[in-house]
Amino acid sequence: MKEKKFMTMDGNAAAAHIAYMFSEVAAIYPITPSSPMAENVDEWAAQGRKNMFGETVLVQEMQSEGGAAGAVHGSLQAGALTTTFTASQGLLLMIPNMYKIAGELLPTVFHVSARTLASHVLCIFGDHQDVMACRQTGFAMLAEGSVQEVMDLAGVAHLATIKSRVPFLNFFDGFRTSHEYQKVEVVDMEDLRPLVDMEALQGFRNRALSPMRPVMRGMAENPDVFFQHREACNSWYNGVEDIVSDYMDKISEITGRKYRPFSYYGAADAENIIICMGSACEAIREVIDYEAANGKKLGMINVHLYRPFSLKYLKEALPASVKRICVLDRTKEPGANGEPLYLDVKDALDELGLNNILVVGGRYGLGSNDTTPAQMLAVFENLALPQPKNHFTVGIVDDVTFTSLPVGEEIAMGGKGMFQAKFYGLGADGTVGANKNSVKIIGDTTDKYCQAYFSYDSKKSGGFTCSHLRFGDEPIHSTYLVTTPNFVACHVQAYLHMYDVTRGLQKGGTFLLNTIYEGEELVKFMPNKVKKYFADNNIEVYYINATKIAQEIGLGNRTNTILQSAFFRITGVIPVEKAVEEMKHFIVKSYGKKGEDVVNKNYAAVDRGGEYKMLEVDPEWSKLDISLSLGEGRGEVSEPAFVRLTPKTATSCQFLPSRKWQTAHGPAARRSSRNAVYRRLFPYGTQRTVSSATSAHTFVLTLASVRSFLTRKRKKGSWLLTLSS
Amino acid sequence: MKEKKFMTMDGNAAAAHIAYMFSEVAAIYPITPSSPMAENVDEWAAQGRKNMFGETVLVQEMQSEGGAAGAVHGSLQAGALTTTFTASQGLLLMIPNMYKIAGELLPTVFHVSARTLASHVLCIFGDHQDVMACRQTGFAMLAEGSVQEVMDLAGVAHLATIKSRVPFLNFFDGFRTSHEYQKVEVVDMEDLRPLVDMEALQGFRNRALSPMRPVMRGMAENPDVFFQHREACNSWYNGVEDIVSDYMDKISEITGRKYRPFSYYGAADAENIIICMGSACEAIREVIDYEAANGKKLGMINVHLYRPFSLKYLKEALPASVKRICVLDRTKEPGANGEPLYLDVKDALDELGLNNILVVGGRYGLGSNDTTPAQMLAVFENLALPQPKNHFTVGIVDDVTFTSLPVGEEIAMGGKGMFQAKFYGLGADGTVGANKNSVKIIGDTTDKYCQAYFSYDSKKSGGFTCSHLRFGDEPIHSTYLVTTPNFVACHVQAYLHMYDVTRGLQKGGTFLLNTIYEGEELVKFMPNKVKKYFADNNIEVYYINATKIAQEIGLGNRTNTILQSAFFRITGVIPVEKAVEEMKHFIVKSYGKKGEDVVNKNYAAVDRGGEYKMLEVDPEWSKLDISLSLGEGRGEVSEPAFVRLTPKTATSCQFLPSRKWQTAHGPAARRSSRNAVYRRLFPYGTQRTVSSATSAHTFVLTLASVRSFLTRKRKKGSWLLTLSS
Repeated sequence: MKEKKFMTMDGNAAAAHIAYMFSEVAAIYPITPSSPMAENVDEWAAQGRKNMFGETVLVQEMQSEGGAAGAVHGSLQAGALTTTFTASQGLLLMIPNMYKIAGELLPTVFHVSARTLASHVLCIFGDHQDVMACRQTGFAMLAEGSVQEVMDLAGVAHLATIKSRVPFLNFFDGFRTSHEYQKVEVVDMEDLRPLVDMEALQGFRNRALSPMRPVMRGMAENPDVFFQHREACNSWYNGVEDIVSDYMDKISEITGRKYRPFSYYGAADAENIIICMGSACEAIREVIDYEAANGKKLGMINVHLYRPFSLKYLKEALPASVKRICVLDRTKEPGANGEPLYLDVKDALDELGLNNILVVGGRYGLGSNDTTPAQMLAVFENLALPQPKNHFTVGIVDDVTFTSLPVGEEIAMGGKGMFQAKFYGLGADGTVGANKNSVKIIGDTTDKYCQAYFSYDSKKSGGFTCSHLRFGDEPIHSTYLVTTPNFVACHVQAYLHMYDVTRGLQKGGTFLLNTIYEGEELVKFMPNKVKKYFADNNIEVYYINATKIAQEIGLGNRTNTILQSAFFRITGVIPVEKAVEEMKHFIVKSYGKKGEDVVNKNYAAVDRGGEYKMLEVDPEWSKLDISLSLGEGRGEVSEPAFVRLTPKTATSCQFLPSRKWQTAHGPAARRSSRNAVYRRLFPYGTQRTVSSATSAHTFVLTLASVRSFLTRKRKKGSWLLTLSS
Repeated sequence: MKEKKFMTMDGNAAAAHIAYMFSEVAAIYPITPSSPMAENVDEWAAQGRKNMFGETVLVQEMQSEGGAAGAVHGSLQAGALTTTFTASQGLLLMIPNMYKIAGELLPTVFHVSARTLASHVLCIFGDHQDVMACRQTGFAMLAEGSVQEVMDLAGVAHLATIKSRVPFLNFFDGFRTSHEYQKVEVVDMEDLRPLVDMEALQGFRNRALSPMRPVMRGMAENPDVFFQHREACNSWYNGVEDIVSDYMDKISEITGRKYRPFSYYGAADAENIIICMGSACEAIREVIDYEAANGKKLGMINVHLYRPFSLKYLKEALPASVKRICVLDRTKEPGANGEPLYLDVKDALDELGLNNILVVGGRYGLGSNDTTPAQMLAVFENLALPQPKNHFTVGIVDDVTFTSLPVGEEIAMGGKGMFQAKFYGLGADGTVGANKNSVKIIGDTTDKYCQAYFSYDSKKSGGFTCSHLRFGDEPIHSTYLVTTPNFVACHVQAYLHMYDVTRGLQKGGTFLLNTIYEGEELVKFMPNKVKKYFADNNIEVYYINATKIAQEIGLGNRTNTILQSAFFRITGVIPVEKAVEEMKHFIVKSYGKKGEDVVNKNYAAVDRGGEYKMLEVDPEWSKLDISLSLGEGRGEVSEPAFVRLTPKTATSCQFLPSRKWQTAHGPAARRSSRNAVYRRLFPYGTQRTVSSATSAHTFVLTLASVRSFLTRKRKKGSWLLTLSS
């Protein structure tokens, strides 16, 4: 057994790493969040990297995704192994060519970082609406739920398409997997090369259009033969499931990680299981382990091979003990009686003679709505009810059509030695870049597993960013934001008043603030809520004036290296000397080209990262009054300006927890509804912008937003929310 | 009750007629078979026709269907009722905008003459692959199965979209419905105007983007609110089913024809039913009536409202007696475990607590594969088997993966006084145009119902055409080619040797041949098979030298009017004087602009259409040897030239009915397999081109076509088909 080789990378890099090996041509038109795949391949090609056949990939950027798909089709017809990378609307533009490519049985892999589709609004974030819009094209579909799975299984898509001639759409969750940094075990070209079916590959090349082997293709057919020929593909599709299964076995041998077309995880005698696809499977896995520790026997089927949908391998994965199944779809198809995976599973069970199993379905995670263990716990709780809710949503509060499940408190998950950190920054302030370096430093210089995810809104530069870092002794399966951090750094002092930056910070945890204040002035600046949290939870509080230090060094507003250095020094996640050495190593790598001066300034930033101070937490802060009232002050309430525009539409309403809401959400909701919904309504605690689940329809957004300006009063033990005008 | 108004038109004209009333803007990019809808609307607009609101429709042709959909979106945002017409790949290019239009709840109707999608080859013909590729977009979907249904229900789509705000995709079968001429009862603008929800319409107009009412729309959203807003459409979708049902009731009141979201037809206590969508429902209806006469109780649910898929109205339609359901899908989704309607019905029944009903699914009619009563009978026969085949095909012989059902002989259907005629012509020889005139003449001047369908291949001009005409005293539901004609006209004498032109011609029927021969020479020219058929079936045979007459008149090769005149004179379907008058009336209408000379020449053609002669049928012809052997003569075997190119790939194979085939097709197949398959293999009798269901894969079409050159030998009672090289 050869030594394992680890690298810290994101899902896009893992997919590009595999795709490069198998490609002779890549026709690209980069789109968020798939762009880095195309960019990586382009960069490697420019550097002369060789694919599995000793060639440099020919990369061609086209004028649109329609053109990219057409170029893929043409290139395949010419006998070149060709791939592309896309997502969302870009993938939709490829649909016409996908029918052609599949119809002509041309082997290719489209790597897709699944993203939602523009509907009521544009959204660059992740769900499965795009890939599900392609499930009828005749492409096989392979799904992965983590960076490691992308590394392990993307090759299966390439290998299986060559052998089966059926083209593959290989996908993983946009942002959550595509942009999550993980320390993963790398699959080498030498591991995969022996698995290529060279005879099938030669067959593909022999079928290339060539004056030497003249054939007619792509003609028109009439009603006399079209149907017969459309059916002639059946035997090729019938072969895919075993080819994929076989390659998964071979990959499992190489990696030691077991993969099946449908991978089962959980108790061998589970009665209630979830069937799901993509990154949420990792969170479900954590919940299964957590509940197993509580003596509950739960399970999950992680769907890797979604098309062709294999009854045989679904049956293989399904424990005989199963009585109830919840199918989770990360998509929404308005007007359908159920989402696609749900419909497929329902039919499959019936065809397997298992229609005694109760099946319900739900939607989750649309537009990268964070999918947490508490949500998955709620899904299992729903499934255990006498009459589980069907066609539910989880992760939002739907107080219009009452589809949502009640969700309890988040629970700290993760293996031994898990360290969780959050960094609040400003888009383009360098926080994200510094944190990427930090995980690489920790990943590359220690035995620790690490993960980094960066949440920012689509405004990007100048917008809100939050970096979520985890380090641990075991592989990290937490495919969601850090909700229970050990460490929080707030790089923008104003955020103390805008966001609930201390939320979830564990008792005895550490807080670092970048601020221009100190002493009494700092204490005066901090909101009562933050101070009370520090006192109540025994938080160690540090502060540093990185803004001033950066100016002194001559780095302008680039505080990132100073704060990164402070993070390493305060937390000691790795020895400080080692951290300093590695940070300086990365500075040379990142800024070396910009000259000695820039390098030296950053060196200085590393050194001066030690200039933080500790803030004495006054136990008296526990007694501070943090109740909110309208107009309490600029620091507590940020009133959206546009509310004032539309006073006519405002009405008052008793809002939560109304009897209707409680009835709709069942008895379990009563316990936690008030707290849960409060969090939902005021996601950042002091911010009063209510989620528009309260509006009848999103289209009238500015009208609906009137409702976001609320006053709250306790009245006879229930919350009364009154619109302000 | 006002007088019924009838007109003879095709489905495209019916859809355009309705669409025009409700449209202020039409953004178009015509594509077969939807082009005539856009062309009609364009023409009417040019003529200044007014819509329901007294306006002329603004028609704008764009640069592609992508542009047309974008223009629709923009026009809707500006508050104009907007529509478009498309099909196939054109519809696929609209998908991205469809998500936007649905997401923003903009009322529109896309009229689609459903067409297959280019996969292994291009095909311009009809099935539901295109509309099914849009079922996830959030558009409501309404389906019609006949020209009358298009006339009656297209308005429901327009009315319901205004009231519900959910956009509609209104579709009917490409070619079969879009290009079928039927005498239909016309729905007037005055019938529909009172049904418009003017308040909802005003709401739509008020929501238009305007500097007077500034709102933000089409923004980007982030993970914090996207999911909530995506779900906010639920209540709008929930409302659609009742709105559609309500409008159907109102339309039923006006027309006297009952429509429901799911329309049931058949025995109130049927146990075995078919669920289907589109024109095949009409053929199923005929089979149900035919079998009812045999004492069998069968039924059918005709799905009109496909999206939102309504459990409530499915339940309403379903007789309590139903035990078995066959769901027929006119689409194929390789890799899915079932086609869309099948999956929807399976889930719906389970959710309705009806999972004791056995459900199987099958595919039919891809690429306008003709869907006949015999096929639908085979579907009912399959459903009655102890273990009905699931995931079958019907209409082809699948001897590769053995999915197909065995199909028996075609049966003559149709109501009282049904007259069926077939006209074989050459593309652009005027046969089709003349027949369109003929049905209009018969439809407009008599109480008879009439139907005309024109089958031609995608070569169009210069290719093979066959006109299929039916006239009867009752509405005609035969949505398939004429298989049992009373009258056959062969306008091209060479076809006697190329196609089985007498096939299905009823005993005592009439045959008209356009030929340059007469007397002994004609008898010598005619193939034995044709002569024997005439003698065996007591056929009245006429011939005319229209080619010569046309030249004499100065019409060149335009024989159409002469042969049309001969048809009316020979058959006497309407009084000859009336026919002559009407033909001349149409000549003025068609050629008036071209001057008196052209009109007079065509008048002469009408008059000289009487110059046909009768051919004496010799009873001795019954004894003619019509067995086929390889190379029997140029007249009998048309050897495809390209077969000679690829001799290496030829192998011999015992073909039918092999034990494997029989096993796969069940006991019922044994009886009729030989005949049925023979017809399938040799669809035109003397033509030896075998359907490529025999090839392992269509992609190597020229290789597979080698197999088309076969010799046949009887061997021990089974057919031995040997490849010729």
